[in-house]
Amino acid sequence: MKIISTITEMQQEMQKLKSEGSSIGYVPTMGFLHEGHMSLMKRARHENDVVVLSIFVNPLQFGPNEDLDAYPRDFERDHRIAETEGVDYIFYPSAEEMYPNNASVKVSVVDRTNVLCGKSRPGHFDGVATVLIKLFNIVQPSRAYFGLKDAQQVAVVEGLVQDFNFPIELIPVDTVREEDGLAKSSRNVYLSEQEREQAPELIRSLLLAKAAVESGERNPAKLADMMKNHINENTTGIVDYIEIYSYPELQSLETLTGRVIIAMAVKFTKARLIDNIILNVE
Amino acid sequence: MKIISTITEMQQEMQKLKSEGSSIGYVPTMGFLHEGHMSLMKRARHENDVVVLSIFVNPLQFGPNEDLDAYPRDFERDHRIAETEGVDYIFYPSAEEMYPNNASVKVSVVDRTNVLCGKSRPGHFDGVATVLIKLFNIVQPSRAYFGLKDAQQVAVVEGLVQDFNFPIELIPVDTVREEDGLAKSSRNVYLSEQEREQAPELIRSLLLAKAAVESGERNPAKLADMMKNHINENTTGIVDYIEIYSYPELQSLETLTGRVIIAMAVKFTKARLIDNIILNVE
Repeated sequence: MKIISTITEMQQEMQKLKSEGSSIGYVPTMGFLHEGHMSLMKRARHENDVVVLSIFVNPLQFGPNEDLDAYPRDFERDHRIAETEGVDYIFYPSAEEMYPNNASVKVSVVDRTNVLCGKSRPGHFDGVATVLIKLFNIVQPSRAYFGLKDAQQVAVVEGLVQDFNFPIELIPVDTVREEDGLAKSSRNVYLSEQEREQAPELIRSLLLAKAAVESGERNPAKLADMMKNHINENTTGIVDYIEIYSYPELQSLETLTGRVIIAMAVKFTKARLIDNIILNVE
Repeated sequence: MKIISTITEMQQEMQKLKSEGSSIGYVPTMGFLHEGHMSLMKRARHENDVVVLSIFVNPLQFGPNEDLDAYPRDFERDHRIAETEGVDYIFYPSAEEMYPNNASVKVSVVDRTNVLCGKSRPGHFDGVATVLIKLFNIVQPSRAYFGLKDAQQVAVVEGLVQDFNFPIELIPVDTVREEDGLAKSSRNVYLSEQEREQAPELIRSLLLAKAAVESGERNPAKLADMMKNHINENTTGIVDYIEIYSYPELQSLETLTGRVIIAMAVKFTKARLIDNIILNVE
């Protein structure tokens, strides 16, 4: 495994691999790897000749009230995990390498952002889009892997790849779950014992909604109400949002049709949990 | 020579060429090819395994007062010229192919635009940057060729390639000139016989400024005055602007130093001519 920290060296290595006909699978991360990342790396390893992991805590996607310096970092641990998962290259640039001077070109995501978690993070996806344009041009992957736990991010990246015609296949990967269905998250450790027992009610409420859709329910408000009641009756958590949109456009729907996402956030004492499912409605 | 009009086919062909190790030289144009374009194609032919020409009249870079429909088009003639210059692929998409639906991601050029010709064309370079991001991702060139006649465009593209780390070598190509030094332009035919005789005074004034710089003059205002006097004394044209900036940053300078551009526009009765030189000042 090779660790590269300069853009020039990374581009030279990737150009060489591409000119030899190698496919490149790419997993972009901010490090502090968890099982979600590991499932992306495994999938990339399975589907490509070469696997690239990038670790870059992108200052541009942190808001003024979000603490960039407090973001957890552990390169030694990430390094070991990447090695175990069969990663070939870690791209690990500094902020100065990625943003050496004031940019003359700016990117704004004008759609798909003002819903779900994006509502409370203005500018966040502009930063995500900017760093991904750069990383895509540096790594030049054949396939890029993103976890569906953050389905809004996947929707924004689908828009980016489509609008700008990146020659990249975007691979959304299913959320990794505990045995009881709780979506894996580094935040789960902040749950109390009682909350941990209640936490699988998020996915249960999503599956209730799915079953209702399969039985013919097409009204998003009714589905959201049903889920909200389920969470209120079965947990001590407070529903932050339950929202239903077309996917990946993230447009409001009067009646469920086509590909839709049902997404939710629930606040517990010290952790806010998110989960979602994507359905194909006839 | 192959003519391709869909993005998917173009990307497949280019991926194949790249995976075989071919270098790709790319000349983006809006068609109605002239000798400036031909010099770009010749240079691309000389330096690459494969030469791609794109012909696309980009609606996004036309302002509300600029007539997109009146832009001259002659595909048959362009086709013949491309064939003569040894072009391998013409990418010739429709506007619907390039912009199929509302984009969710927008690009703005926030620097290098509010000077020279860009002052009077708000939004123009946003459109140029957007289409170039798309075209670069579609053609995936090793080298892209741009004429220095439009030095501001080259400066903006240099910013774009640098900010977004496109793995592309940008090749600025010197302006093609008539024997008497007049920069070639399709607008030169609109000059009266007398104006045509005066028109080489643009490059003469630029060369006067260059000689003054070489003799030690470093004051941009003095150089601009000298050039303005020269144009006023030797032509019936009206100076639209004479501006001197750092290049490619296009920042104002109190004293000439480093790489600088001296650029000018002069209005004749039915044609507005532009010209520029780029100098390295010690």
